[in-house]
Amino acid sequence: MRLSSYFVPTLREEPTERDIPSLRLLLKAGYIRRIAAGVYTFLPLGFAVYKKIENIVREEMNRAGGIEIFMPALNPAELWQESERWTNFGPELFKLKDRTGRDFCLAPTHEEVSVEIVRRTIKSYRQLPLLIYHIQTKFRDEPRPRGGLIRAKEFVMKDLYSFDRDEKGLDESFEKIRQAYERILQRLKLPYLILEAEAGAIGGKYTLEFTVPTPSGEDEVILCRSCGYASSKSIAMIGDSEVPQGEETPLRKVHTPNLKTVQEVASFLSTTPDRLVKTLLYIADGRYVAALVRGDRELSESKLSLAIGAKSLQMADGETIEKLTGAPMGFSGPVNLREDVLIVADKEVAKMKGFITGANEEDFHLIGVVPGRDFSISMVADIRLAVAGDPCPKCQGKLEEIRGIEVGHIFKLGTEYSEKMKAYFQDEDGSLKPFVMGCYGLGVSRLVSAVAEIYHDEDGLCWPISVAPFDLIIILVNTQDDVQRETADKIYAQLSQKMSVLYDDREESPGVKFKDADLIGIPIQIVVGRKAMENKVELRVRRTREREDVSLEEIEDRVLSLWERLKEE
Amino acid sequence: MRLSSYFVPTLREEPTERDIPSLRLLLKAGYIRRIAAGVYTFLPLGFAVYKKIENIVREEMNRAGGIEIFMPALNPAELWQESERWTNFGPELFKLKDRTGRDFCLAPTHEEVSVEIVRRTIKSYRQLPLLIYHIQTKFRDEPRPRGGLIRAKEFVMKDLYSFDRDEKGLDESFEKIRQAYERILQRLKLPYLILEAEAGAIGGKYTLEFTVPTPSGEDEVILCRSCGYASSKSIAMIGDSEVPQGEETPLRKVHTPNLKTVQEVASFLSTTPDRLVKTLLYIADGRYVAALVRGDRELSESKLSLAIGAKSLQMADGETIEKLTGAPMGFSGPVNLREDVLIVADKEVAKMKGFITGANEEDFHLIGVVPGRDFSISMVADIRLAVAGDPCPKCQGKLEEIRGIEVGHIFKLGTEYSEKMKAYFQDEDGSLKPFVMGCYGLGVSRLVSAVAEIYHDEDGLCWPISVAPFDLIIILVNTQDDVQRETADKIYAQLSQKMSVLYDDREESPGVKFKDADLIGIPIQIVVGRKAMENKVELRVRRTREREDVSLEEIEDRVLSLWERLKEE
Repeated sequence: MRLSSYFVPTLREEPTERDIPSLRLLLKAGYIRRIAAGVYTFLPLGFAVYKKIENIVREEMNRAGGIEIFMPALNPAELWQESERWTNFGPELFKLKDRTGRDFCLAPTHEEVSVEIVRRTIKSYRQLPLLIYHIQTKFRDEPRPRGGLIRAKEFVMKDLYSFDRDEKGLDESFEKIRQAYERILQRLKLPYLILEAEAGAIGGKYTLEFTVPTPSGEDEVILCRSCGYASSKSIAMIGDSEVPQGEETPLRKVHTPNLKTVQEVASFLSTTPDRLVKTLLYIADGRYVAALVRGDRELSESKLSLAIGAKSLQMADGETIEKLTGAPMGFSGPVNLREDVLIVADKEVAKMKGFITGANEEDFHLIGVVPGRDFSISMVADIRLAVAGDPCPKCQGKLEEIRGIEVGHIFKLGTEYSEKMKAYFQDEDGSLKPFVMGCYGLGVSRLVSAVAEIYHDEDGLCWPISVAPFDLIIILVNTQDDVQRETADKIYAQLSQKMSVLYDDREESPGVKFKDADLIGIPIQIVVGRKAMENKVELRVRRTREREDVSLEEIEDRVLSLWERLKEE
Repeated sequence: MRLSSYFVPTLREEPTERDIPSLRLLLKAGYIRRIAAGVYTFLPLGFAVYKKIENIVREEMNRAGGIEIFMPALNPAELWQESERWTNFGPELFKLKDRTGRDFCLAPTHEEVSVEIVRRTIKSYRQLPLLIYHIQTKFRDEPRPRGGLIRAKEFVMKDLYSFDRDEKGLDESFEKIRQAYERILQRLKLPYLILEAEAGAIGGKYTLEFTVPTPSGEDEVILCRSCGYASSKSIAMIGDSEVPQGEETPLRKVHTPNLKTVQEVASFLSTTPDRLVKTLLYIADGRYVAALVRGDRELSESKLSLAIGAKSLQMADGETIEKLTGAPMGFSGPVNLREDVLIVADKEVAKMKGFITGANEEDFHLIGVVPGRDFSISMVADIRLAVAGDPCPKCQGKLEEIRGIEVGHIFKLGTEYSEKMKAYFQDEDGSLKPFVMGCYGLGVSRLVSAVAEIYHDEDGLCWPISVAPFDLIIILVNTQDDVQRETADKIYAQLSQKMSVLYDDREESPGVKFKDADLIGIPIQIVVGRKAMENKVELRVRRTREREDVSLEEIEDRVLSLWERLKEE
């Protein structure tokens, strides 16, 4: 492709949108353009990268036994009402009406449609397992679009749905796709972590998240470098650590006027926050719950929900707190709570003695509180938020906190959707059973940004060859020089037979051409300049900055072997 | 691909939706499934056909110099307000709001976004021409979805936008894409007509429509088989024909009580409808217009609009008619009309003398009306609707009426959008000029139905090999017979190296397998049955019903040469 007749509008000025490096570079290098907040156009180079990623995803889905279909974005409300997600999905669901007043949504995911298709077509266990997928444009009314293609209102996702006869089948399908995701990320040359994660609006009993670690990512990850344990921060488990237990002292009530924060109370009592225990009141599926964590810790609501098996969890409001404790907010404690409150203590708290808590009385705290003696713990669980430095739950190594971009998320859904939507098959024994489902999402357009986020330097993008929009760029330094032009034309004709070549034949200054070549980041560069008179050109590797002069006789062989090497790297 | 592990849910019963044959067959053969009115899922076979068509379209667009990008479906209202189509596009435009209350539409076409991209990136005539396209899912709130993929609410279109320096450049771009469309339709083995057509909501000065002639199509086409003239019926021109002129008789007023229709008046006056002239009153861009056509003819509002250069045309209501004629509806005539009414006579009427019209007085008609003597014609034009039997405007041959499916529509837009949206480039002389635009739509998903509409018979689909989901199907008659199974396995392994093969290895009766193979319509069939014991299989051609026994030694060569033949056909 000759750049003079292509469409690569690189920018001289800095883009205004640059919240993460890849967004700045994809805009500046002419890969994408913003149409509205969270809505982008792929320009030719961006679309070329997207297509390469899409093809890798398609190949690996097919290899894993996935069958490609194409489901619509417009979904009738009725299907989403059956799954109860018409109301439960939340404000991210774009809703609209057609001219007859019928309700539709723009699907952000396709559990409903896939179940609708399967329940109308699959009747017998003999037709299972079935793994169907599509690669399709999705919509999500994001409150805060971010990072360009990372969190967009319109994006392309690959989503696969597995339908199995039983849990064992689901486990096999899940494992197939898990492996396929690993192959995809390896082919994209992306580092990745596989995290234990929350299911969110999709549901399901077990989920894994595929995350590309990078400081600009918005996902918080807890990681153990010793054993490889990795988890979404919100649900990361924590190993056992030595806790200063304290002593069994008598229970005393102290006046703590106008002191509300943990720090204020600790200072007033000349102690440290780790001697306090916070009592946080919640309503979980209609039940009252008091969660106890040490004064210097944060509660993880996700872990609390998982521990008590709650589907919904809301913090209690002031009125409820008064009702349960007899005191206003800020003075809650586990002693003399109303009997119908489930007291869930973090495992750290369960080991402590003689700590300080609210007295359930305005302006008073209790000191010397001892569980068992002064109140009863209903349940001990790991419910505090993990932080860097905490012990690993698997190997007791030191946990680290890093950030990452979630690129994939896979779910064991079980029979949640098939039961709600009455999707049954006839099993070998003649009985009707609900399909056992899994679902598997991969952010195809998001992966463009994820790769760019990993592969760039101060001068621009440096794509791995598996996703680069072209393999090679030829930079003709002086278009007015006949020798240079003929040399470049010849190399272009010759190498275009072997690989995809972009030929910068524009009438621009050498400075602009070199800058643009580095900015757009095609892996191999050939500079055709003055040395063309001596039958030599310069061969450069964008990412490593290797450079050397190569004779015209050798150039094809040298490029081909370099190309092979870069594919392996 | 083994059918036993694929997903081809053919139906035994007849689908309820079957308004045109291709819809019935695409549903029955398991190519598509309905999700809502006008909203479909492509199942694996349907998606395979779609992908083949998409690839042909992409290849030809690239060959014509098109550069592929990918524009979003979510379009901010602001862009459509600039082009004035936010209100002018009509109720087909799906509108929605995001959570912040901002207005968006789901784009049914991308003039606005393409102009937005180009006006921000192209500054100089040196960067022109630019032809950008995408293949993308579009939305249109159709009042009456029809024919499955033919008129759907969600569909895939290829749309290309050309940006040129001047009209000459536009003509060249237009011609390139016109030729590319012809190549595409030829590769899809589709018969087609290129029609003169109306621009509709897209606008522009000159448009051509690509239509596949078929009785089930919803577009009405006027065609001359002698010279090839073809036009959308609404704007088809009509050649000159001999008109019985009549005689110049005195003007007389006759009482015609309670007679309103042309037929009633003609009968009452013992004459034929072709001796009457209808006077139809309109408001065109605020002006009053009376259109005169012979009593047995229909007016074409489109031709009237074109003749008088009107942007809007509404039929006058009863009140306006009374104001202009002094009489109620049904008695209008050209004699003594209010002076500010433009009288446009069809060219046939202009030749007539002594005809009958309304008298502009309730229950009265005039007979013996002579143009020039009794009233003045403001403009003579070809404004009546063409019908079968009319003379061709080019060769005076006999026009025919047929029906067709519009698959493509290309427009010379000129500077309409670039001026409204302030999209300028700097020309060689330093002046700022608006881009001269063209736009070019092709219904990619609709083409799946169009091909199916042309290629089917009473037993099912019979795809041309260029778009068939597989080249070959192997039908294993008896899965329990070792010889048959081993023979089929061997042929499957052998031919899968050369072409795409579907292998019906299901445990179904031979009858079901033969029926399904004919229904899904893969071009080449190999039947592995009892003759496998004699080292023979049956080779069949789906469309022509050719059948012959072929030995196993010869089968590969025979299939390959048949395959080549079918590709040429």
